[in-house]
Amino acid sequence: MAQDAKGNVRAPELLDLTIDNITPNTVRINSQSSDARLTYLMARLVTHLHDFARETRLSTDEWMTALGFLIGCGQISNDVRNEFILLSDVLGLSLLVDSINHPKPPLGTEGSVLGPFHTHDAPVLPNGSSMTADPLGEPMLAVCTVKDTEGRPVAGVKIDIWETDSSGHYDVQHAGRNEPSERCVMVSDEQGRFWFQGLKPVSYPIPHDGPVGKLLQLLSRHCWRPAHVHFMFGKTGWDNLITALYLRGDPYETSDAVFGVKKSLIIDLEEVDSDTAKEYGVKEGIWLLKHDFVLTTEEQTEKLRDQLAVEALEKLGLRMKLVDHLPVPDLD
Amino acid sequence: MAQDAKGNVRAPELLDLTIDNITPNTVRINSQSSDARLTYLMARLVTHLHDFARETRLSTDEWMTALGFLIGCGQISNDVRNEFILLSDVLGLSLLVDSINHPKPPLGTEGSVLGPFHTHDAPVLPNGSSMTADPLGEPMLAVCTVKDTEGRPVAGVKIDIWETDSSGHYDVQHAGRNEPSERCVMVSDEQGRFWFQGLKPVSYPIPHDGPVGKLLQLLSRHCWRPAHVHFMFGKTGWDNLITALYLRGDPYETSDAVFGVKKSLIIDLEEVDSDTAKEYGVKEGIWLLKHDFVLTTEEQTEKLRDQLAVEALEKLGLRMKLVDHLPVPDLD
Repeated sequence: MAQDAKGNVRAPELLDLTIDNITPNTVRINSQSSDARLTYLMARLVTHLHDFARETRLSTDEWMTALGFLIGCGQISNDVRNEFILLSDVLGLSLLVDSINHPKPPLGTEGSVLGPFHTHDAPVLPNGSSMTADPLGEPMLAVCTVKDTEGRPVAGVKIDIWETDSSGHYDVQHAGRNEPSERCVMVSDEQGRFWFQGLKPVSYPIPHDGPVGKLLQLLSRHCWRPAHVHFMFGKTGWDNLITALYLRGDPYETSDAVFGVKKSLIIDLEEVDSDTAKEYGVKEGIWLLKHDFVLTTEEQTEKLRDQLAVEALEKLGLRMKLVDHLPVPDLD
Repeated sequence: MAQDAKGNVRAPELLDLTIDNITPNTVRINSQSSDARLTYLMARLVTHLHDFARETRLSTDEWMTALGFLIGCGQISNDVRNEFILLSDVLGLSLLVDSINHPKPPLGTEGSVLGPFHTHDAPVLPNGSSMTADPLGEPMLAVCTVKDTEGRPVAGVKIDIWETDSSGHYDVQHAGRNEPSERCVMVSDEQGRFWFQGLKPVSYPIPHDGPVGKLLQLLSRHCWRPAHVHFMFGKTGWDNLITALYLRGDPYETSDAVFGVKKSLIIDLEEVDSDTAKEYGVKEGIWLLKHDFVLTTEEQTEKLRDQLAVEALEKLGLRMKLVDHLPVPDLD
């Protein structure tokens, strides 16, 4: 790239930009920052965005429709609704970003999508508490452990847990929500255990009264998620695990609208027997969810993430070269 | 792709989606609509979006920052402000989409960006009218013609014209705007002529108090546009021409923040002499903008657009094949 006497990158003269030279020129004018990561992200973003328009010969009407769609997504979003996370979810991007950032070794519990309904106001409850007051749901006792990949219990892990009520709605979807419901934060004990009372999860549609719902309809896609409970595990030194457990046999088990289901995350509920009922102070015969989660350390995850990134970028080598091989006007 | 007994495409089983198989599976689940164009657009969009995340190893924090940026763009937009058009402009996408859709034969007037400030409430004024009441601007008479590529006048063309006031703001940028100002619609006469009084245009910053302004700042880019007047030409049977004329010598002539300038659109202003002053009923010595615009027919443009599209897609052949060559799980 041309440089001036002081060694600064000289910006290109942006004149007569055409279908063929607009991309390298936009990338160059975006390359004046000292932030190398930002420069790289913008270069790849602009290249893909322009390639998309060139390959599809995007029409002016289609472009305007897309911009109107994006405005709609922004305008329906608020403190408790994030239409762009939902859009990212239904396009498979959320699952992809999670997979890139939180690769798991064979024994680690796999991740799933965060979704747009996690909040930061869930109460911290002692083990054994109930996180629901919904009288219509089917009561469920959950008895879980958190261990490392060597099978050793991990104590003091903060676990965010959230699910819908029996109507398939998260608390934040109800107008006039006063306080958190069907959500709590627990902390694993010295044996890595945590247990709580909640509801047998139900399948539910993602919010489909906005632009994303309209898009799914145009694509002849349904908007349902199979029944699940969300879990997020956090402890310093351990890789943040965002995941969910899904009920086997749900009608949407293999067609989750947001691509979250993994075979290793599908579980069968049991029934609470008399011994368990006594031990946990719950009614015999209610649903029982038992699961052992396996956390990985930050070090394990970083090593695996770096290794996979290097392998992936090496594999992409040829293609990256070709994508970048657009006509580049000489600046000198 | 697998089909059921009725010949319908069978949706894939969306389980265990990974960095490597999420893209073909998302493309497949998006391919159930009977709208082939929508299916193609979604396939290319999802492929590019996922490739972007894979190539950059997009981090969870970067992804959340991007979603927050998009929400911000939606929320600052309103009836008279469109932050997504502005975003499209500063990323070079608007210029690209216009170039794809409105290619010009050698004699046709080149296009430029629409920008976010065109409105639909400009008054239709008779030739010779003034479209400004700004006492601080430098008065300018514009005397123009509209012809076809054979040099024949085109009568009855509706011409939208808009520019900023002397402070560099469009009317819609002023709080409490009651009526349109510095904008009008004219109609070309039997000789293809139209003329009006406006202001000598000034350079101005694009709105930079929102997310797009913040982005430009992070990229070490300035937010200025060189002085220009917008023109949009519409008549049934003729290709809609969105363009602008730029003043030669403007400090931002070669670094327009939205990539709109083309050499053929840069003009020199003259001064109104005594004959012209008498002829048009204006003061001698004010600025004079003279320009002959050349429209192309819809037929000319369509033919050229199709020809360029076929050539471009043929050239892309090899690359498209490679991009599509991602691991595709067998559905049968």
